Amino acid sequence: MTHEAIVSIDPTSGAEVERVTEATTPERLAEICQAAAEAFAEISGHDRAFRVRLLRSVAGALEARRADIVDLGIRETGLHRTRLEGELARTVYQARLFADVVEEGSYLEATIDHAGDTPMGPGPDLRRMLVPTGPVAVFGASNFPLAFSVPGGDTVSALAAGCPVIVKAHSSHPALSQLTHEVLTTAAAATGAAAGTIGIVYGQEAGALLVQHPAITAVGFTGSLGGGKALMRLIEQRETPIPFFGELASLNPIVITEAALTARGEELAKGLVASVTGSGGQLCTKPGLVLVPHGPAGDAFVATASTLMSSTPATVLLNERIRDSYDSISAGLEQHPGVQVLAEGGEPTGAGFAVTPRLLTIEASVLAEAQVGECFGPTTLIARYDRGQLQGALKTLPASLTATIHAEPSDDLEPLVDVLLPKAGRLLFDGFPTGVLVSWAQQHGGPWPATNTQHTSVGTSAIRRFLRPVTWQSAPEKMLPVELRDSFTGIPRRVDGQLVLPDEGDRR
Amino acid sequence: MTHEAIVSIDPTSGAEVERVTEATTPERLAEICQAAAEAFAEISGHDRAFRVRLLRSVAGALEARRADIVDLGIRETGLHRTRLEGELARTVYQARLFADVVEEGSYLEATIDHAGDTPMGPGPDLRRMLVPTGPVAVFGASNFPLAFSVPGGDTVSALAAGCPVIVKAHSSHPALSQLTHEVLTTAAAATGAAAGTIGIVYGQEAGALLVQHPAITAVGFTGSLGGGKALMRLIEQRETPIPFFGELASLNPIVITEAALTARGEELAKGLVASVTGSGGQLCTKPGLVLVPHGPAGDAFVATASTLMSSTPATVLLNERIRDSYDSISAGLEQHPGVQVLAEGGEPTGAGFAVTPRLLTIEASVLAEAQVGECFGPTTLIARYDRGQLQGALKTLPASLTATIHAEPSDDLEPLVDVLLPKAGRLLFDGFPTGVLVSWAQQHGGPWPATNTQHTSVGTSAIRRFLRPVTWQSAPEKMLPVELRDSFTGIPRRVDGQLVLPDEGDRR
Repeated sequence: MTHEAIVSIDPTSGAEVERVTEATTPERLAEICQAAAEAFAEISGHDRAFRVRLLRSVAGALEARRADIVDLGIRETGLHRTRLEGELARTVYQARLFADVVEEGSYLEATIDHAGDTPMGPGPDLRRMLVPTGPVAVFGASNFPLAFSVPGGDTVSALAAGCPVIVKAHSSHPALSQLTHEVLTTAAAATGAAAGTIGIVYGQEAGALLVQHPAITAVGFTGSLGGGKALMRLIEQRETPIPFFGELASLNPIVITEAALTARGEELAKGLVASVTGSGGQLCTKPGLVLVPHGPAGDAFVATASTLMSSTPATVLLNERIRDSYDSISAGLEQHPGVQVLAEGGEPTGAGFAVTPRLLTIEASVLAEAQVGECFGPTTLIARYDRGQLQGALKTLPASLTATIHAEPSDDLEPLVDVLLPKAGRLLFDGFPTGVLVSWAQQHGGPWPATNTQHTSVGTSAIRRFLRPVTWQSAPEKMLPVELRDSFTGIPRRVDGQLVLPDEGDRR
Repeated sequence: MTHEAIVSIDPTSGAEVERVTEATTPERLAEICQAAAEAFAEISGHDRAFRVRLLRSVAGALEARRADIVDLGIRETGLHRTRLEGELARTVYQARLFADVVEEGSYLEATIDHAGDTPMGPGPDLRRMLVPTGPVAVFGASNFPLAFSVPGGDTVSALAAGCPVIVKAHSSHPALSQLTHEVLTTAAAATGAAAGTIGIVYGQEAGALLVQHPAITAVGFTGSLGGGKALMRLIEQRETPIPFFGELASLNPIVITEAALTARGEELAKGLVASVTGSGGQLCTKPGLVLVPHGPAGDAFVATASTLMSSTPATVLLNERIRDSYDSISAGLEQHPGVQVLAEGGEPTGAGFAVTPRLLTIEASVLAEAQVGECFGPTTLIARYDRGQLQGALKTLPASLTATIHAEPSDDLEPLVDVLLPKAGRLLFDGFPTGVLVSWAQQHGGPWPATNTQHTSVGTSAIRRFLRPVTWQSAPEKMLPVELRDSFTGIPRRVDGQLVLPDEGDRR
């Protein structure tokens, strides 16, 4: 029996560079899942300090192999060095931040209600906190080979929660997936983690079998709406339902007011084109639609943006599918009678997955007819509006990860916020949505089709996806997790309804 | 065109008592959903203090109509006065507790990261908190006509979050649903709430259309596994996926050790039979399986429980479906070669939905073959075990809302906890799982098939089901929710990574 080869492709030429491995067989997948289940039992016997060490070890190991990782990433994805250097820094920071989250301990939501009288009679001693769900499947994304792939937010938030991870390697960077998996497992082993703590599988069939395997308790996914829906259908066929945390499709509209254009139109045009073309426009937060007022200030903005876009070179995209999808969505939009091409950048030459950057325009009054949605790649659509048309146009848009307003203090923002807030997970003012900071207050999510969840995949609260609550009733002290014992004061807890901070110097 | 009548049935006779209303038509359903969407826009313009008043008004109004509500409840459900009095007290308390939750404000998870340098470069000002998802559909449960129906945990937690509610009235108590809906809407109107804040629909078709309506953003359900699965299938057909929070089927195993039986076997037998037969055994936390050791202490326990069960009168169940299901599951178990009937209570006489209480037994060694699951009603299965068989038997069980251990300090509890914790949302020691206290530390949920969610439907954190996170980036102060402004210090917030409690006397 021959196995499907997993090959590394150079996106600049479209040529196969090497055979990395072979697709994971169903038998091997079952072994990997079994190892994850065993690792889960073992991790559950460790304390939080163990996971803090694990995460810091992972961070250090990624940093130590920076040069190898970035070089391989450049070859396999076509992304630039500065971008991949930045992505690695982010991933390292993220692993350390989740170590801090585990150490700080609020994420456990530790809550104690002592036994006592209640309006419903005597109440028992109840103590609640969050516990890990079990092994988690993570689907690597093509566009963030370090931040949403084998290493990255899903992996480290699941490990932080106490869940083993099995990553489905993305077919766009199998060699990088293999290298980073090796770095992660070596770092994990150095802290004494069980062998099944971080697994990896290759190939589409293995991914499908993975989300249907009984050992898997949750799925983290960043990718296309179509890919996400296909996984949801597979998960719906499971005997035991599990949560699917999908980050899917996002238009990321930007609204620019007349006053903002008058104050800083040129700066905005430069910022927009940089945001649209950075990383080849292959970011889930890339602005796909920009609402610009009619009139001279709007015309000047469009002229500047067009000039900049015209001088943008042809851009190598991550893989054949994204290239084809870019070309076909662009062609579809251009055929719409209301859409005009404002500017085109360099044309691709030779083989490989390069495309032409493109600036399109439409009248806001016919925007709804064009049914504009996400188009991965270096393009955006400028919709020109007259005063009074704006809110109506915004109401027709799908929900997104982000919505942005560029305005001046003289503008009345409230009507815009009222229509944009229900459609976004992050509402920005006077900035561009690309560049998602990993922090405590970050939200990377939003109503469907941006995601299908009420959670985030970036920022510290991403850990909540891989936890479930348990209450211990009248438990003997020794059977309680240490964080729920009366004598423990190392983390913030709610005791008899009151939030109590840890004693200074007693955090642990 | 004639409309399907919604009738009130007396479960003691099976006879129709009155025609309450007619099934909600699709046209009327659309109007109710539209009103909820409008109410959502209006509620979103109010502050938290408005919702605190709304919840306290609802609590006071239910208390004021206590006599009418309980009398009608007895007639329509066959449940006893003390039970319904207690359930009303719980529902009133719960509405007030959620008012406290809204006032206290931690549930918003308010988080502020000020702009500043980060390892990834300059970071913008990010401020995150939870906002309501929008109108919520709540499915009334037959067995808690006041605590999980038109009033109850789902309704008040959704209102607390800021979401309008549309209840699908349960067919077992339509008149009580109508009365309590009237009480709730009058109380809501008195605080100035919009007309669509609390809606109601009747009939199975209306329920199906409700979960598929675009205005609905989440569904709360307490009911059977079959009913829950049917709703999940309907929701999967939606164009826009929404979360389904289903509390479904639970076996609630109890393990009793030899030492516990020796110390207090008679007390345990009394406690068990009371827990199994209370409310006619129609509680999601009713113990459906009890593991009892072989030997004289176990025999004495079984004898006492059998005597008590034999003297339990025939029990009127809530409706025909539950009665039929009880009879058919019981008959199926009795036909299993490993199962024996230990004791039977009174036999039903005449019409109505009465059944015979029943105590069954099986050997733990063949427990897996019997595939025991939830059986609503006054019955439980005692599985007798030999030392060494216990953990194996427990491993074969489905997950539950609860798992209980009755033991003595001399027992080694760790092996039992290791096998029960992954299978339960609440782990009890030396108590019975029925009687779910509404409190901060309560968890009423658990792995599938107990529920399909990582949340609870009882206790303060039930509010999280109806909230989604939003981050404001670089927002002008006046466009921020008041709770995220720098000048505000009235609720616990995380500021630049540190949890900060409100200033004493400054809570608001």
